[in-house]
Amino acid sequence: MSHKTEFLYLSEQDTIKAGVLDAVKCIDNAEEVFTLLSKGDYLMGGSNHNSHGLGIVFPKESPFPNMPVAGPDRRFVAMPAYLGGRFDVCGNKWYGSNAENPKKGLPRSVLTVTLNDKDTGEPLSFMSANLLSAARTGAVPGVAARHLARKDSEVVTVLGCGQINRSCLRSILTQLPNAKKIVCYDIFEEAGKKFLGWAKEELGIDGIVTTDLEEAVRAGEVITVAASRLKPLYIKDEWLQEGVTLLITGPMQSDDSFWMNTKLIYDNVRLHEAYVQEAVESGDKAASYASVIGGPIYTLIDDGKIRPLVESTSIGEVILGEKEGRADSKERVTFVACGMATFDVGLGYDLYQTALKEGIGQKLVLWDDPYQK
Amino acid sequence: MSHKTEFLYLSEQDTIKAGVLDAVKCIDNAEEVFTLLSKGDYLMGGSNHNSHGLGIVFPKESPFPNMPVAGPDRRFVAMPAYLGGRFDVCGNKWYGSNAENPKKGLPRSVLTVTLNDKDTGEPLSFMSANLLSAARTGAVPGVAARHLARKDSEVVTVLGCGQINRSCLRSILTQLPNAKKIVCYDIFEEAGKKFLGWAKEELGIDGIVTTDLEEAVRAGEVITVAASRLKPLYIKDEWLQEGVTLLITGPMQSDDSFWMNTKLIYDNVRLHEAYVQEAVESGDKAASYASVIGGPIYTLIDDGKIRPLVESTSIGEVILGEKEGRADSKERVTFVACGMATFDVGLGYDLYQTALKEGIGQKLVLWDDPYQK
Repeated sequence: MSHKTEFLYLSEQDTIKAGVLDAVKCIDNAEEVFTLLSKGDYLMGGSNHNSHGLGIVFPKESPFPNMPVAGPDRRFVAMPAYLGGRFDVCGNKWYGSNAENPKKGLPRSVLTVTLNDKDTGEPLSFMSANLLSAARTGAVPGVAARHLARKDSEVVTVLGCGQINRSCLRSILTQLPNAKKIVCYDIFEEAGKKFLGWAKEELGIDGIVTTDLEEAVRAGEVITVAASRLKPLYIKDEWLQEGVTLLITGPMQSDDSFWMNTKLIYDNVRLHEAYVQEAVESGDKAASYASVIGGPIYTLIDDGKIRPLVESTSIGEVILGEKEGRADSKERVTFVACGMATFDVGLGYDLYQTALKEGIGQKLVLWDDPYQK
Repeated sequence: MSHKTEFLYLSEQDTIKAGVLDAVKCIDNAEEVFTLLSKGDYLMGGSNHNSHGLGIVFPKESPFPNMPVAGPDRRFVAMPAYLGGRFDVCGNKWYGSNAENPKKGLPRSVLTVTLNDKDTGEPLSFMSANLLSAARTGAVPGVAARHLARKDSEVVTVLGCGQINRSCLRSILTQLPNAKKIVCYDIFEEAGKKFLGWAKEELGIDGIVTTDLEEAVRAGEVITVAASRLKPLYIKDEWLQEGVTLLITGPMQSDDSFWMNTKLIYDNVRLHEAYVQEAVESGDKAASYASVIGGPIYTLIDDGKIRPLVESTSIGEVILGEKEGRADSKERVTFVACGMATFDVGLGYDLYQTALKEGIGQKLVLWDDPYQK
């Protein structure tokens, strides 16, 4: 019995043709993925089914002159997942990252996604995943804005004016019909100006630029946090206004009093449980906590100051109406997201389906018939 | 600054054109990789730099009708690595496996390898890796046969007549100038017959087929073990002849007395240290040991009956002349190999270089210029 295997290659341009820049479609996709996460209809890596991924960790120093050493944002990570529901497919995101890349005219990370038949393992598609990954990362706070933000919010504060917050803002604004102004904060004023220029042109919204974190935070009714992992922000409790919606995509620190009094909604509680488990297993919990977005929260949970993860709320439960999201217009609501391969697989699958239907991309033959069976 | 990124796609046929079936070249490649492993000029996954990979583990049962459940050889695994020396490249092997595949005319596993620039993360090549993976798996005992087997060995016993032992035998025979006969053991006689037929035609060697494990083991001067993970072999100490070279690529069990008296040489001691560390961290060491090839050995080490891993020998040290391999023609030497992504990256890199030189494969554009930088 001969068995030909073909798969579809999608370049970055192909993913654009397949709709990766359509923020609302990406939010709808992420919302659907969240409901599957909430039901448990997915698997990520490891025996806990919730490992974020497996990275190549570069050493601080090496006796081998060619071996890469640790540097800003320097890593490679593989992120495998199965996603159920109508997706019902396996996949793996694989990327390399290096803060030096922009000097070469490249994005900080270069990403690809492979989708595979869940039964046979045959590749279905191999695709450029820079825009896909940015879109799914932005779509996540977009879903949170849809379900948690006050719809009368007029001012959106952007903390960290890089690529990730471009995707986040593009996505969030589609959910805030009354948004009138953005406040762009970055430690580099130039980055803020560039970001505002982009937002005016691309999203048609005006605003201001500031390097004063307090000013930026005080102004925000919805705040999107995606600053560099290298310099986490410290946001004081007293700066955050009543009714604010804080959408956390990158690391930040705050006063214990803030974390203890805001309503915390997680992207997926099980993922955070896995982070805690991996931190315990690593033998250095504090160092492990310091490297993940939820670290400050896990510490307060361990100290008994915040309710345990097992009693907490995932946004999927809010979407499904099983748990309460925002209770009133005065409560401060904080959404914490860490990035899951399931979103890459979910959005990648829809791009692949669109590409198939519309004849986008390039068919490649793996084999006309396998040489060995 | 515009930055076009292209990479090379290699189908299975392309990897054949690039030399993946040339067993001696593959052994030379694996030997070189072993010396780099021994020097430490490589990185695999995780903070210990030696994680085998990260898998999607299918649950025994699932409330979701579409979700794959645990089954024979059913898994997906991502295996990232950096390899130094003249290779100096990162990569990731990604595969899905399912014992049901042959019914569909497919090999049990479907594998791909991505190679990436170590600095920028840009893909260099995406390739079909079924033959690559088989070749590197076979090349490893080939290197061991080169350095550890008695050159006067005439009888090679094959325990487990599947695809992996085809690659192992192809490779091992290139190193045994006096090999005259193979003994093909499998629990299914049909598999043994098919294997022998293949070996006659493809490798030009004759032999016999048996379903009697004792007969097969007693006959072997060099024995290659690659039986199914599902039914590990129990090989009695008394069956193994003086001077035998046992090349372990798949799980087997034996009497404690055998393990305690054979000279053990590992593919890479650090990898086995990582397996033990991961077993301890898993919280169920026994179950974890039961799932890896070295399990029976680690148990005896824990019991103080075999020298600890840290005092043991990697084959790279034998190749480099730093430690003794086979001491004399009477000693029984056992080589234990578990599979490392570094070999996929090493062999994949040489196939890629050959393909580049000889115009094999298909150039694909990731982007003419990245949409976001």
